[in-house]
Amino acid sequence: MTAPIADTTDLLRRTPAVLSALLAGLPSAWTATPDVTDGWRPRDVVGHLISAEIDDWMPRVRRILEDGPGTPFEPFDRFAHVERDAEVPMDDLLDRFAALREENLAALASLVRDDDVERRGMHPTLGEVTLGELLATWAVHDLDHVAQIFAGLAGSHDADVGPWKAYLGILLRRDDPSAVPD
Amino acid sequence: MTAPIADTTDLLRRTPAVLSALLAGLPSAWTATPDVTDGWRPRDVVGHLISAEIDDWMPRVRRILEDGPGTPFEPFDRFAHVERDAEVPMDDLLDRFAALREENLAALASLVRDDDVERRGMHPTLGEVTLGELLATWAVHDLDHVAQIFAGLAGSHDADVGPWKAYLGILLRRDDPSAVPD
Repeated sequence: MTAPIADTTDLLRRTPAVLSALLAGLPSAWTATPDVTDGWRPRDVVGHLISAEIDDWMPRVRRILEDGPGTPFEPFDRFAHVERDAEVPMDDLLDRFAALREENLAALASLVRDDDVERRGMHPTLGEVTLGELLATWAVHDLDHVAQIFAGLAGSHDADVGPWKAYLGILLRRDDPSAVPD
Repeated sequence: MTAPIADTTDLLRRTPAVLSALLAGLPSAWTATPDVTDGWRPRDVVGHLISAEIDDWMPRVRRILEDGPGTPFEPFDRFAHVERDAEVPMDDLLDRFAALREENLAALASLVRDDDVERRGMHPTLGEVTLGELLATWAVHDLDHVAQIFAGLAGSHDADVGPWKAYLGILLRRDDPSAVPD
């Protein structure tokens, strides 16, 4: 990456707009289905992204800048949303995520320069990591989970496409991850 | 589905806005990588969606309404974009897709009512299908291909996430479709 902070920030800034364009006001006929059996519905994914804005990305950036690899990151609770967001309407989750993301990108811009990307931190399981790797992971984590939302939306209409399912990998992979469309 | 046309149209109307929020002006550091080896870059996916707006969905809706199952649909060229769009900038592709989608949804609204969804057509390979199945497939095809764009965007930063790749299914599945993150 030649301009890692600008490059990453450009992608991160888009995610709230992408989620709102996709999900705000969308009928529950589309949004009530998880990506896979025992997986996450779109609202669960948005809740998880909110948790990561609160407890993961910027706390770890600050830990690297303040302590380096001497103090490991706090473990991150991947299921913090389950109780916290159970009664929160989808559109409120989208607004909350957008506000947190905006705050965090402002904090990132004020704290980090491109020549900080080689600074090191300690992941509690993965060992030594760099600030640049943390920032790239923030963006790819967005992409991973937003793609998961598409699988849930598609799954809600699995029974409606009839024989076309044979051509739709996003449906086939919900049943068998290695499935290949005809 | 209780209101299939409204339900499907609501999703279909969102796709151009989702794609623009994600891709318009995005640096090529994110957009130059296909979803898998020999797969499609984001611009190829948008080109394929353009082709389907031109040659697939509404021509097949009209064939069902005019001829029923007596005349099979024309086969659809999945690679029509490769030569047609080779020199077209991404933002122009996004505009073209948005304009075609708007035209097609206007045509759909003028031609089709909910009680048409059981009307039948003949797919050249899959056999008899219904208009309702065609409309659900239009929407799920959007979801399938937009999710594919996320895999290409993530893949562009595969080398940048370091040891976190072990947690990022969207990267692991580019190497092995049945991979499960740690």
